[in-house]
Amino acid sequence: MTNSDVTVLGLGQMGSALAAALLRAGHQTTVWNRTAAKATALAAEGAQVAATAAQAQAASPVIIACVLDYPALHEILDPAALAGRTLVNLTSGSPEQARETAAWAAGHGIGYLDGGIMITPPGISNPASMLLYSGPRTAFTDTGKLLSAFGEAIYLGADPGVASLYDTALLGIMWASMTGWLHAAALVTADGATAAEFTPLAIRWLGDVSGFVRAYAQQVDERAYPGFDATIDVQAATIEHLVHASEVRGIDAALPKLLRDYAKRAVAQGHGGDGWARVIELLRAA
Amino acid sequence: MTNSDVTVLGLGQMGSALAAALLRAGHQTTVWNRTAAKATALAAEGAQVAATAAQAQAASPVIIACVLDYPALHEILDPAALAGRTLVNLTSGSPEQARETAAWAAGHGIGYLDGGIMITPPGISNPASMLLYSGPRTAFTDTGKLLSAFGEAIYLGADPGVASLYDTALLGIMWASMTGWLHAAALVTADGATAAEFTPLAIRWLGDVSGFVRAYAQQVDERAYPGFDATIDVQAATIEHLVHASEVRGIDAALPKLLRDYAKRAVAQGHGGDGWARVIELLRAA
Ligand SMILES: [Ca+2]
Ligand SMILES: [Ca+2]
Repeated sequence: MTNSDVTVLGLGQMGSALAAALLRAGHQTTVWNRTAAKATALAAEGAQVAATAAQAQAASPVIIACVLDYPALHEILDPAALAGRTLVNLTSGSPEQARETAAWAAGHGIGYLDGGIMITPPGISNPASMLLYSGPRTAFTDTGKLLSAFGEAIYLGADPGVASLYDTALLGIMWASMTGWLHAAALVTADGATAAEFTPLAIRWLGDVSGFVRAYAQQVDERAYPGFDATIDVQAATIEHLVHASEVRGIDAALPKLLRDYAKRAVAQGHGGDGWARVIELLRAA
Repeated sequence: MTNSDVTVLGLGQMGSALAAALLRAGHQTTVWNRTAAKATALAAEGAQVAATAAQAQAASPVIIACVLDYPALHEILDPAALAGRTLVNLTSGSPEQARETAAWAAGHGIGYLDGGIMITPPGISNPASMLLYSGPRTAFTDTGKLLSAFGEAIYLGADPGVASLYDTALLGIMWASMTGWLHAAALVTADGATAAEFTPLAIRWLGDVSGFVRAYAQQVDERAYPGFDATIDVQAATIEHLVHASEVRGIDAALPKLLRDYAKRAVAQGHGGDGWARVIELLRAA
């Protein structure tokens, strides 16, 4: 019944990049998009353009979905067309949405793999790019060869929600780190340095921070946070310099003040002798 | 008049590590601490112990100060003993405090170099450790051989406040990144993963984030923030997943909400098509 290797539903920037990568890797690819014009360039590269979403889902044994959100996804999924096939869902959403859709798929005899793409569209096809997947292992092994066209395919286990959870969690690290760097850049540029001068040191320093994080992972799992040489007591004092240096330069201090608040609360709870990883207990106790 | 190569004022954990590093590197070292007992171990390793802070400052051509804070520093500095010598000030404080102390030193004919130590005491003597210095270049070239005992000595220019400013700014990146990672770890461990499983991916991801930061440095200097493939519009939507995933797990969402607030404000100002680096303009406009 199928006449291509793989189908891509949704041809936004990311869906188009995925379809182009599959075509480059030599896979017979069917594409579909709500507004058909977006398929034109891919058709020129050899994609088959399906007239309807249902036909697109019937066309291949593996269907990759990358649409705006879960409501848009559920509008187009066709259980009759998908039965016996594998749906790889790369639509951005919450772990809860991924789990619900996995359960829906299982109820209709549809294989299901959920994914999180940790790269912007131009990074698709770069073997160093990180794509996260979770769901039944068979769904991953059955589709792994196709998925390797996008970058490194990292399998996180059977829980279909894990890929989205890791995706969200990693993006949170990105926003926090980038905003911390922007705040630092605002400080040093206020005194005449350029971001270009400062940033190589900041990047080197992020490497050092990675080393601290590596050491703290064990503390988090053991829920014991010995301060050794870098206690929250000391950091609660030095963080005042950061708040002060921001304020005298007219730079928004909301991020330093939030970090100071965690330090102060840890100290007030009697944990000033612990290391920074203790802050996770404050996050968990919300 | 001098009878040693270098003096260390202040023998807390860091001062003691500095003095030990100088002794290991073969430098004749005089030490002083308010409570003399802390000098005992260093004396056994060959340090000369000065009876008073003034005698310690008279004992060497280079005086390294690492005391609790600037008030403690100014209590012990002796302009008569220091005249014609070089003070390397590694006391933790603000750029403004560093600049004031540099001006005070210049007024008394004292050479001055200010520093920021980007490592905890056990990292002293590791050549990969990062120590930042600023002040007159002669003060750096005159002391560079001694300072190389501590790690890599990085000279940031003549403004004596820059080392402290970079120090503070880099620590801000550390707290933001580590807290972002702790928040992420709280999310994934809430669903049964371990921090040990998650953290290698987080560290790899921090390397990717370093690449984004490298690209954004130019945008910050040009004050133009083209969004290309990762607009704030898109991120304002995905950041909702982070807030939601936190709240359904009972995890403190203050950090994601602060980041979301920046995204929303940028969008409200008509900059939703820009990239995340645009947030620096919100920080500067505080
Ligand atoms: Ca997902
Ligand atoms: Ca300093």
